[in-house]
Amino acid sequence: MTPRIGIIGGGQLARMLFQAAVDIDIEVSFLVRETDEGIRGLAANVVVGDLGFETITQFASGVDVLTFEHELTPIETLHKLADAGVCLRPSAKTMEVAANKLAQRELFSRLKLPIPRFAKLNRDTAFVDPCIAKAITGGYDGRGVRWINEAQDLEPLVNDNVEWLIEDLLDVEDELAVLTVSSIDGDVTTYPPVRTIQRDGICVEVQWPPATTADLDERAQAMASAIARELGAVGVLAVEFFVVGGKLYVNEIAPRVHNSGHLTIEAASTSQFENHLRAVAGLPLGPTNFITPATMVNLIGNINRLADYQVAPNTRLHLYGKTGRKGRKVGHVTATAANVAAASQLAHRVRERIIASD
Amino acid sequence: MTPRIGIIGGGQLARMLFQAAVDIDIEVSFLVRETDEGIRGLAANVVVGDLGFETITQFASGVDVLTFEHELTPIETLHKLADAGVCLRPSAKTMEVAANKLAQRELFSRLKLPIPRFAKLNRDTAFVDPCIAKAITGGYDGRGVRWINEAQDLEPLVNDNVEWLIEDLLDVEDELAVLTVSSIDGDVTTYPPVRTIQRDGICVEVQWPPATTADLDERAQAMASAIARELGAVGVLAVEFFVVGGKLYVNEIAPRVHNSGHLTIEAASTSQFENHLRAVAGLPLGPTNFITPATMVNLIGNINRLADYQVAPNTRLHLYGKTGRKGRKVGHVTATAANVAAASQLAHRVRERIIASD
Repeated sequence: MTPRIGIIGGGQLARMLFQAAVDIDIEVSFLVRETDEGIRGLAANVVVGDLGFETITQFASGVDVLTFEHELTPIETLHKLADAGVCLRPSAKTMEVAANKLAQRELFSRLKLPIPRFAKLNRDTAFVDPCIAKAITGGYDGRGVRWINEAQDLEPLVNDNVEWLIEDLLDVEDELAVLTVSSIDGDVTTYPPVRTIQRDGICVEVQWPPATTADLDERAQAMASAIARELGAVGVLAVEFFVVGGKLYVNEIAPRVHNSGHLTIEAASTSQFENHLRAVAGLPLGPTNFITPATMVNLIGNINRLADYQVAPNTRLHLYGKTGRKGRKVGHVTATAANVAAASQLAHRVRERIIASD
Repeated sequence: MTPRIGIIGGGQLARMLFQAAVDIDIEVSFLVRETDEGIRGLAANVVVGDLGFETITQFASGVDVLTFEHELTPIETLHKLADAGVCLRPSAKTMEVAANKLAQRELFSRLKLPIPRFAKLNRDTAFVDPCIAKAITGGYDGRGVRWINEAQDLEPLVNDNVEWLIEDLLDVEDELAVLTVSSIDGDVTTYPPVRTIQRDGICVEVQWPPATTADLDERAQAMASAIARELGAVGVLAVEFFVVGGKLYVNEIAPRVHNSGHLTIEAASTSQFENHLRAVAGLPLGPTNFITPATMVNLIGNINRLADYQVAPNTRLHLYGKTGRKGRKVGHVTATAANVAAASQLAHRVRERIIASD
């Protein structure tokens, strides 16, 4: 029997994992919070509850493997679950490092990977040049990030009730992401690097192929694999890179399916969602080659009426079933074409029709 | 608000309609029979019940539009539902003709479309040459079809408790199918013709592009459109053709998403499932162009253990959540490649791994 998979989380990543589970006939259940939109009312097996030890233990009793859509489960709870014999994929240890931006950087340093200079922020941290401050835990989609122009900008952060780190602000030319997929036996495979484009700290577009050399691609994949291997990852783990002066710097990681991989649904042999499920279920991983140039554009904000959802040729729409609001990802569109420029144009044309202007 | 769609049926077509509904965020419910496998335990909104007037009326009260995965609902029930104000898409009239192979042929004749010579079977029907007998209602996947070699083969059918028709057995070179999609305003669009390959009356493989001329393609699309228009179809309606001596003969129709259109999931701009939902929901239809050569191969029989589900590059697996048995469609695999021959080879390679030899 294929193991039953329990997924903690109920947003769009859960939604797309669900669709992939249907294709390969894997039984999935979801533990979602009261406020989650995306999978409630859609999948048959949805439990609404908090992220406490009792709730998760109860949820886990009905499945064989637990996996995650987000990094919000308290780490101590994950360790307690593991101690209680719950099968976590990825492990509590992997989640612990991935949920902590300082621990991530210590890992990258240990692997001697190129990263921006960083320091944990405290009263004594020297401020040098413009830098960037990041909340050590809990930040996402531009939240928990501050641009620091002068020493006094650090004051409120030093006194904040969450911990911060600062790192050098690099002159970033480009950003890449590599999705790794790790089997339960420790085999690590990677998707080719994609180019990610952010605005205001939110990913707005992802493209394959990126305008990189084969050599840069290889190095990015090798670094990403090293990280996944060192972490003992299982399933998809995304590694984000900066390109500065033609050189790679590791930015950060996410131990789960990732916005940078949505275009694998249409453009790769196996989607990141199917491969994550295959990995955590202990099935053979699917091939990770891209089969066509493609661009994914996030739909962010308020959606026009469905009646206006004209689609363009060679594009696919993915709506998340979420209430639209300013800055919120409510869907994405992927376009395939002979090249990235053409795909990007198609995808943006659809976005402009669907997203109501503010 | 987008209308809520109620789908009568709970097999693989319902399953793939469900996946498409997730992408475009349409609310769908299913009325399934006790024995249906495919959507039970998967979707949140599933009602188990019979196909009687009371059951369907109750089910319909929770949705805005009713549509169908199969032609099993009794026609008199559909007319009663329509009279009671239930919104049926397609209509009872369309379903009535489509569910009756004799009425189909009378329609084709009225439209002066080329078809094999046919006659309703009764005591007086003259037997001429080898012919083929078809149950007028209820047949599918090779059931309800008999090859008639001599006059006495007709005896049991004349005395059968279902009605039969006979038609000339043509020397078929090839078979094509055209999917039509009709909007609620009567606009009819078509997908390009695909080649279908049957074995023992069951579709085993579908390919695009077929080895046809542009002229033949155009004529097939024109005939299919004429049928959909004449029937007042809404949503997907499939039209199957024989190619004999380089000429087209209309074979039969199905007023729903169809096995010949599964490869549109990967290979066309809009899948037949999304377009059916768009049509019955009154949304703009999606583009129907193919974007890559592709082959779909049905998985028929018993499935090997999931652990063996190796997938090949450029292929996608779709399992239906059904118990495998001899002759039963339990999934399909679609391969995309530079040409049909390469795609076909890839798809069969996956099929051979997945389907246990008898």
